[in-house]
Amino acid sequence: MDIEKVNSMDFGEFVDVFGNVIERCPLIAAAVWSQRPFSGLEDLEKHFFAIVDALPQSGQEGILRCHPDLAGRELQRGTLTAESQREQAGAGLASLGAGERLRLAELNAQYRARFGFPFVLAARLQDRAAVPRELARRLHCPPAQELRTALGEVRKICRLRLADLFGVDPARL
Amino acid sequence: MDIEKVNSMDFGEFVDVFGNVIERCPLIAAAVWSQRPFSGLEDLEKHFFAIVDALPQSGQEGILRCHPDLAGRELQRGTLTAESQREQAGAGLASLGAGERLRLAELNAQYRARFGFPFVLAARLQDRAAVPRELARRLHCPPAQELRTALGEVRKICRLRLADLFGVDPARL
Repeated sequence: MDIEKVNSMDFGEFVDVFGNVIERCPLIAAAVWSQRPFSGLEDLEKHFFAIVDALPQSGQEGILRCHPDLAGRELQRGTLTAESQREQAGAGLASLGAGERLRLAELNAQYRARFGFPFVLAARLQDRAAVPRELARRLHCPPAQELRTALGEVRKICRLRLADLFGVDPARL
Repeated sequence: MDIEKVNSMDFGEFVDVFGNVIERCPLIAAAVWSQRPFSGLEDLEKHFFAIVDALPQSGQEGILRCHPDLAGRELQRGTLTAESQREQAGAGLASLGAGERLRLAELNAQYRARFGFPFVLAARLQDRAAVPRELARRLHCPPAQELRTALGEVRKICRLRLADLFGVDPARL
């Protein structure tokens, strides 16, 4: 994929391709299409981030609430999006033992109850041991700080998914 | 469903139930959850509308772009959301002849090309003869006016879907 191809897409194609770079929020990609043409991958990414940043706090929390739990029910049931499935499996979360799964389920539930959104982490940048450690650490952060941290993870996930679609090394972004 | 039940939902349940009252925009329902408790169905509806109204124009266009064509490919393929399927079938759009389908496909394509979003209509309030007539009429409206009209249809659809979930007559809203 190159940027000329992206700029030539109608909104249907664009949402088909980019609709899940923000997990389960095709509305964001559909809004970004209004900003075309894009000068390159970085410019495209900038527009995704700008729309997330411009949302009121309820909208930013809404984005987080569209994310699945890590190693949660949806992974068990096979109902994750293709991207989440690949990312969670890549971090080793599909092959946890029952004890590790239970521990994560408890931490996820505590986190949801405390913050009102699920624990979001760019799982591909982590290994399976790091996930419960990060979760336990962030569980004790102040809510305003944790919202910022979680949105930073949404940006990392978006960057990685965009890099995949363009076939580039995300370190080069 | 009553409002006490709604107010007792965690965000996962809330998004499961209300995630498609704005077509394919669970982000909106997920954002509305931040505004709980709700005093009643009207208050809940008001919060959905407020989030739609507060979006920048690109976001409002994004909502429209998450809607399927009426009598389009997705109806043929059976890939509509359950709500859209019911509404389009209820308006008689599932039983069009080939000629009527082709005529609508042409009008839909012209509309998309002109406005950059699909033709959105609360199909349940229309019959099959009215759909191409409305489409042909709105195709000639000025873009800023058409955006307002289309968002008004999004609100009508939202109101009808909320009324269904609460089991009330939408005329009473």
